[in-house]
Amino acid sequence: MKIKRDLETCFSPALYEPERHVGSIVVVIDILRATSAICTAFENGAESIIPVATVPEAREYKEKGYLVAAERDGYVLDFADFGNSPFNFTPEKVAGKTIVYSTTNGTGIIKIASDAGFIIIGSFLNITAVTSWISKQEKDVVLFCAGWKDRFNLEDTICAGAFAERLISTSLFSTMCDSTHAALDLWSIAKNDPFGYIEKAAQRSRLRDKNLDDCIPFCLTADYSKKIPVIKDGILVSMV
Amino acid sequence: MKIKRDLETCFSPALYEPERHVGSIVVVIDILRATSAICTAFENGAESIIPVATVPEAREYKEKGYLVAAERDGYVLDFADFGNSPFNFTPEKVAGKTIVYSTTNGTGIIKIASDAGFIIIGSFLNITAVTSWISKQEKDVVLFCAGWKDRFNLEDTICAGAFAERLISTSLFSTMCDSTHAALDLWSIAKNDPFGYIEKAAQRSRLRDKNLDDCIPFCLTADYSKKIPVIKDGILVSMV
Repeated sequence: MKIKRDLETCFSPALYEPERHVGSIVVVIDILRATSAICTAFENGAESIIPVATVPEAREYKEKGYLVAAERDGYVLDFADFGNSPFNFTPEKVAGKTIVYSTTNGTGIIKIASDAGFIIIGSFLNITAVTSWISKQEKDVVLFCAGWKDRFNLEDTICAGAFAERLISTSLFSTMCDSTHAALDLWSIAKNDPFGYIEKAAQRSRLRDKNLDDCIPFCLTADYSKKIPVIKDGILVSMV
Repeated sequence: MKIKRDLETCFSPALYEPERHVGSIVVVIDILRATSAICTAFENGAESIIPVATVPEAREYKEKGYLVAAERDGYVLDFADFGNSPFNFTPEKVAGKTIVYSTTNGTGIIKIASDAGFIIIGSFLNITAVTSWISKQEKDVVLFCAGWKDRFNLEDTICAGAFAERLISTSLFSTMCDSTHAALDLWSIAKNDPFGYIEKAAQRSRLRDKNLDDCIPFCLTADYSKKIPVIKDGILVSMV
């Protein structure tokens, strides 16, 4: 009998246990909007993405001539080329370019997960590409929800549930992880109408209040891209 | 229009934000088995419960003549009077007594939550008593799931969902908390057969492996008790 690979889900950076996941594949999920934007950028031809944590860092890169995507609390920073919505990452703007992406949450997660074997960027937009690739590797998997300011969130959790559903259905994975079971169950409720389901999510209200919610149906769309963004030496590049 | 009180849920001590909950009522939920055992003890006449974190502390109390309930990894400590199963807290043993209860998880949570207005011990066993009392207070409420070693767990989450369902149904509370929505949704799946639902929970397997799972159906029983255990100066006493 073949031993199945382990599938776990982490609901927040505050819950991540790095020592347990050395050598695993970590899929970072932050669908509203960072990981959806990153998937869109690579689909539209971006060469690489440099994640930076602070505004001064982003400004420094801008002064060196880089293309910079940067928001704080939903407002595009004055020196930036555009904000963090996936709709900004059009082929006209990003093809062949290196983009500097300012994200407090994201850079923290990349640091936290840096002991993992692989860090992959996941979203609904590349779910089939990622789960198919993962299935062919001989590694345990962690679905790492970015959350919001260390809090659990619904949108990343249902996306993790969708990833888990596909991975479990291959019969290659098993899970003894309560978070994975919860994600699967919440996805079972949400899957017929994900947009309706996340109506109650706090991030849904935050984006609506700032008129930044136009991208939500897009962020819930499966398989816009076959690209798999991965972290290499702290920089995001496309694996495929 | 009356402003509704805020209801939040915290899935793990690692996710608790003490500064946000000063003055709130915090309901600690650790149904397999600490908070179920504590509710049982008070229903059966215990006078008070002293939670202690370490084995030496528990032993010291034993030497002073206290009744001590203490386990480590499911094994009753040799000097203890009995273990942590609710079935141990019979009227014959506990009526009129002060019990020392050894719990690493629990004492940590009491410390973390000590800025709250009230810390209440909740379980299915006293759900009606607690939610009725809470409804009459003019305070925000946090449902604080103990989890297991800082991890999310299913059993405390569905219990929080059951508490949230009752509180929301009073129309006195509203929530913008994704964790509360998730707990409500998981409870909606679990409620027709909570015992069947938590079959997949990691703690279910842990207790089964140690033959400590006989108390689970009892721990899922609503309204065994009308007592409301509260923390007063670090000690558990019954409010009603």
